[in-house]
Amino acid sequence: MRAEVLAVGTELLIGDVVNGNAATIGRLLTDAGVEVVRSTAVADDEPTIAEALHMALTRADAVLVTGGLGPTQDDLTREALALAAGVPLLRDESLADALLARYEGLGRRVPAMNLRQAELPEGATAIPNPKGTAPGVRMELNAGVVYALPGVPHEMHAMLVESVLPDLLSLADAPAAIVSRTLHTAGMWESAVAEALSDLHERLASTPGAPTLAWLAGKGQTRVRVTARAATREAALGLISPVEAEIRSTLGIALWGVDDETLPGVIHGLLLAGGQTIAVAESLTGGLLGAALTSTPGSSATFRGGVTAYSSELKTSLLGASLEEGAVSASTARAMAAGVRERLGSSFGLALTGVAGPEEQEGQPPGTVHVAVAGPSGSDARLLRLPGDRDRVRQLAVTSALDLLRRHLLGGQADR
Amino acid sequence: MRAEVLAVGTELLIGDVVNGNAATIGRLLTDAGVEVVRSTAVADDEPTIAEALHMALTRADAVLVTGGLGPTQDDLTREALALAAGVPLLRDESLADALLARYEGLGRRVPAMNLRQAELPEGATAIPNPKGTAPGVRMELNAGVVYALPGVPHEMHAMLVESVLPDLLSLADAPAAIVSRTLHTAGMWESAVAEALSDLHERLASTPGAPTLAWLAGKGQTRVRVTARAATREAALGLISPVEAEIRSTLGIALWGVDDETLPGVIHGLLLAGGQTIAVAESLTGGLLGAALTSTPGSSATFRGGVTAYSSELKTSLLGASLEEGAVSASTARAMAAGVRERLGSSFGLALTGVAGPEEQEGQPPGTVHVAVAGPSGSDARLLRLPGDRDRVRQLAVTSALDLLRRHLLGGQADR
Repeated sequence: MRAEVLAVGTELLIGDVVNGNAATIGRLLTDAGVEVVRSTAVADDEPTIAEALHMALTRADAVLVTGGLGPTQDDLTREALALAAGVPLLRDESLADALLARYEGLGRRVPAMNLRQAELPEGATAIPNPKGTAPGVRMELNAGVVYALPGVPHEMHAMLVESVLPDLLSLADAPAAIVSRTLHTAGMWESAVAEALSDLHERLASTPGAPTLAWLAGKGQTRVRVTARAATREAALGLISPVEAEIRSTLGIALWGVDDETLPGVIHGLLLAGGQTIAVAESLTGGLLGAALTSTPGSSATFRGGVTAYSSELKTSLLGASLEEGAVSASTARAMAAGVRERLGSSFGLALTGVAGPEEQEGQPPGTVHVAVAGPSGSDARLLRLPGDRDRVRQLAVTSALDLLRRHLLGGQADR
Repeated sequence: MRAEVLAVGTELLIGDVVNGNAATIGRLLTDAGVEVVRSTAVADDEPTIAEALHMALTRADAVLVTGGLGPTQDDLTREALALAAGVPLLRDESLADALLARYEGLGRRVPAMNLRQAELPEGATAIPNPKGTAPGVRMELNAGVVYALPGVPHEMHAMLVESVLPDLLSLADAPAAIVSRTLHTAGMWESAVAEALSDLHERLASTPGAPTLAWLAGKGQTRVRVTARAATREAALGLISPVEAEIRSTLGIALWGVDDETLPGVIHGLLLAGGQTIAVAESLTGGLLGAALTSTPGSSATFRGGVTAYSSELKTSLLGASLEEGAVSASTARAMAAGVRERLGSSFGLALTGVAGPEEQEGQPPGTVHVAVAGPSGSDARLLRLPGDRDRVRQLAVTSALDLLRRHLLGGQADR
């Protein structure tokens, strides 16, 4: 079963609205085993919508249309469906009655314009809208099926889950499950992850029915997505399991979590399990590291606090770092980590100092960052040369610091 | 001039990633007077990308492709462009040299796989990428032009603004200027801004050729976008100018900047002008407030540092706040602001304490936040009841604190 998404609305093309509906539909259909092969957005224009619908049905068994079902003159999806099918639009009296009753219940009269929402292309059926006034439209066309839903996200979502998905799955001959599992890594660039897994990738690519691999990079982390298709969800998970095991064994400690897990969440869990706490000392990141560690609900159990010593002299007065080798140095990072650990009374101290840019500092170029962790069993430090602009250097510095802490907590396996 | 957007990436179809790039491109092209007629997303599949490209060029003069330019095996846009044009992919030695130099500068060797990023379809030219390693591709095809850009949003954005838009506009026959000016406000909800400007909005809407108004809300700030279309940029700016003056007079101190200005940047400018400095004391935001203030290049001239006292006892030991009325109270916020000002030796102290959620604290519901500023001429404090989840409460708290500081710096006009 293959499906396409067709979003109707000029606001999507001019960038006034981000097409979140397409992502919602993609996720829910994929989870239900329906492959989404294309997603298109077109303007509020009747012939364009009708043409896009015909094209989509040459590639897919089902098309999910969003938007253009409102009461105003620029809502043209009903007209476009009728045009595509070569049938007239007819008033559905039960829809009209329901609309009248709904407005009466609100103590308002139905604006004449809104009665357009009671019209359906001949031969189509209405899809109930439990959250709003615009009914959806289900119509068979060119040996496929079209579901038109409102563009309002929560109405669209409810109708998709309650009506469209059950109908769509009842049409599938051999319902299949597509399951993805996302493995998160840190401390390896995307190319290094891909290179480490290239044998596995080739082996899977040449094996019919095997799971597929994809890489996604962002914020200094690389995600590996394993996707399998099988008759049932359990069978798909069974295909993923040995692939995940091989990836885990290949990537080792660089792999830190799966699916919805976050790096701060994993660290919170490790600290919690050990009855330990953390405090941070920052400079170029201005507080971003503490903000990351406190993004997890319940982080007050493991996060004590932080000191941002943006000016050099505060690194000495607040943290006791001597700055003998300059503010941007490994010894200063270590002293900051030890200082914040001692002064805030935490199990571990984690520190960042460096040059965010755009200007150099102490003769060191932007992207030069020292990170250090201090704990009961010693300390670790690392020198980073981070690429990108100020924002990106700060973001990558935070991820690197979190990853150093994670590796330290896992038993001093940090890569020095 | 008509353009289409073609986004490449299975992650978009399965809903792993929302297609924000399409909205960014739509907004920037529309602002530049280029009509976006369709937006399509396809999977990482070479023939599909090539076919979609051909179809797009039957409807549009230019196609902006995003994604699929990375170094890994599932990045197939380069191959698809070559396939669509019926030409081979050739190694560009100057791109390869630049890639080698970039990696050398970072002290890393180029992974063999990454040299794919130095390949171009025969006859195509590279689009410089100031923010990352993947160059873009510009290629003429079927009497139209194709620009392929990376999917990483900040790289895509920079290349679009610096290279693609100027090139695209140089191709337009009769360039009309569409100019937008964005006015930033804080401390007013979107509906209040819209209400204050509703007369102006109606007057403009009923005047042919007058600028249009749009409202955009986000992160506790409301932006008003004024857009004018005229024969030249100067003429468009001339239409905007009296409208901007009227908006400024209506919104008063709530309006803090225009276009690319940021709230931290405006505060940095105010402090710099007065030869003053700031230090922050945080709790629920964990460092986000300091991170915001240091997002501006050169902030070391005005930002001294910060203390995040996440645990209650640190609010006393690090900042000298007595907590008599509890950690979440106006008196504690004031004491934190005064404490950090004194201990870090800054002109002003800015403090946040409150409940981010999801749990309540000291019997106070999530979203209860106290913000305070302390300075040479006294202090200000405010109680906020912020809506939303943990992330949103933290974000809104930061914006509110920055706005309180800004109003305080502008002469104690803070709304108590």
